[in-house]
Amino acid sequence: MMRKLLVCIAFHGGAYHGWQVQANAHTVQERVQDAIEQLFGIREDISGCSRTDAGVHARRYYFHMKANTSLPLPRIIRSLNALLPDTISVQNIWEVPPDFHARYSAIGKEYLYQIWNEPSPNPFLLDQSFHYPYLLKIEPMQEALHHLMGTHDFTSFCSQKSSVQDKVRTLTKGTITCHDSLIQIRIGGNGFLYHMVRIIVGTLLFVSQGKIQPEEIPEILNRKDRYFAGKTVPAHGLFLYDVYYKQECMYG
Amino acid sequence: MMRKLLVCIAFHGGAYHGWQVQANAHTVQERVQDAIEQLFGIREDISGCSRTDAGVHARRYYFHMKANTSLPLPRIIRSLNALLPDTISVQNIWEVPPDFHARYSAIGKEYLYQIWNEPSPNPFLLDQSFHYPYLLKIEPMQEALHHLMGTHDFTSFCSQKSSVQDKVRTLTKGTITCHDSLIQIRIGGNGFLYHMVRIIVGTLLFVSQGKIQPEEIPEILNRKDRYFAGKTVPAHGLFLYDVYYKQECMYG
Repeated sequence: MMRKLLVCIAFHGGAYHGWQVQANAHTVQERVQDAIEQLFGIREDISGCSRTDAGVHARRYYFHMKANTSLPLPRIIRSLNALLPDTISVQNIWEVPPDFHARYSAIGKEYLYQIWNEPSPNPFLLDQSFHYPYLLKIEPMQEALHHLMGTHDFTSFCSQKSSVQDKVRTLTKGTITCHDSLIQIRIGGNGFLYHMVRIIVGTLLFVSQGKIQPEEIPEILNRKDRYFAGKTVPAHGLFLYDVYYKQECMYG
Repeated sequence: MMRKLLVCIAFHGGAYHGWQVQANAHTVQERVQDAIEQLFGIREDISGCSRTDAGVHARRYYFHMKANTSLPLPRIIRSLNALLPDTISVQNIWEVPPDFHARYSAIGKEYLYQIWNEPSPNPFLLDQSFHYPYLLKIEPMQEALHHLMGTHDFTSFCSQKSSVQDKVRTLTKGTITCHDSLIQIRIGGNGFLYHMVRIIVGTLLFVSQGKIQPEEIPEILNRKDRYFAGKTVPAHGLFLYDVYYKQECMYG
């Protein structure tokens, strides 16, 4: 029987050049399609919730696919995990209505950026955090992040390589929490531009350094010019943390 | 001026064949001696708090050394970290009295063993936890661990390759905590035999599986025979968590 499945995976981005299949580079999508082909005997087309850059991790990444199978879902999870490398792990699978789309049915996304904030590096978080050795000033960073909440044109926080026209997005969540020396910045919203989270975090570092004042953020947004925001921080601290879907579109 | 220094490092064991220098294999000690030689111009002898097996991690590992230098300690920390690979990180340095010894001045040690307890693997803890896919029964494991506390002959929990004669040790700490699906087992005591923590954890898994009852632990200790304990779990879940020193021997 033909079913439409929504699959949630976690992956360690260090081994891959992002999600999307490309020539001459290993990608997550390619490895997942290999495993699906081995399991079902057909190279099914799969469609992901977003592109991700090389090195970026995902705690929860979603794709949809069609599968002509009556296998129970827990059995499909176990089989795919047995066929996938350990750097990609199927977390859950749901059966979804025919018009469900991993990308277009999403109503928002949440990212996590991790910073290891100690003079000495942390050997256990090397590939999962950005090592920033100077003591961060969390309060002005939180204040700056607060100025970014709501609906704005985020041109100043978008890579100039982006070809997207409409750069208006709405951010609904922005928190900074500290677990000893591990700083976790969570940013959620209805959509994100190319490098947007990494430029926001780089701007927060400028705020900590006193190069930008929190109250200058509205002005930086108004300028609609990438030049005025902070640097783009490295990919290996970034995690796609979750994707928001309406409950009704997942359970039909 | 000649000083005796106690150095605390963290290291990721995945890249090394343990602490101790050996022919034809990269070890932590070798890399540390390289960095010290680069910094001070002399290949100083350094003496570690214990051997560690290939693949075992250390959150806090201690060694002592002599150094003919007047450099401030924070400067030595920064310089060594600049010279060491990121998988080895100097956490702290103290000046200690001439009779201090990283191994013989220690009065105890604490280990951590991490288990990822979900059917699906965790791509972010692959090399820092043992993946055990079946639901663990924590209560009987805690009960069994409790039976191991105190002073016993731990022959049944020691690799048969060990050449140590006196196998009496005292365990003072044994806790199991769960953070979502990450199970952390902490074991502290005045000394540990070869593979002792890994055999204890393997025995706790047998308890979870119902192959050993918690109340059988005293009998297993009495038998003084490795055969009756559980399997040795893999090295990559094990961390030397801390070493206990008397305050007065560190600050002279």
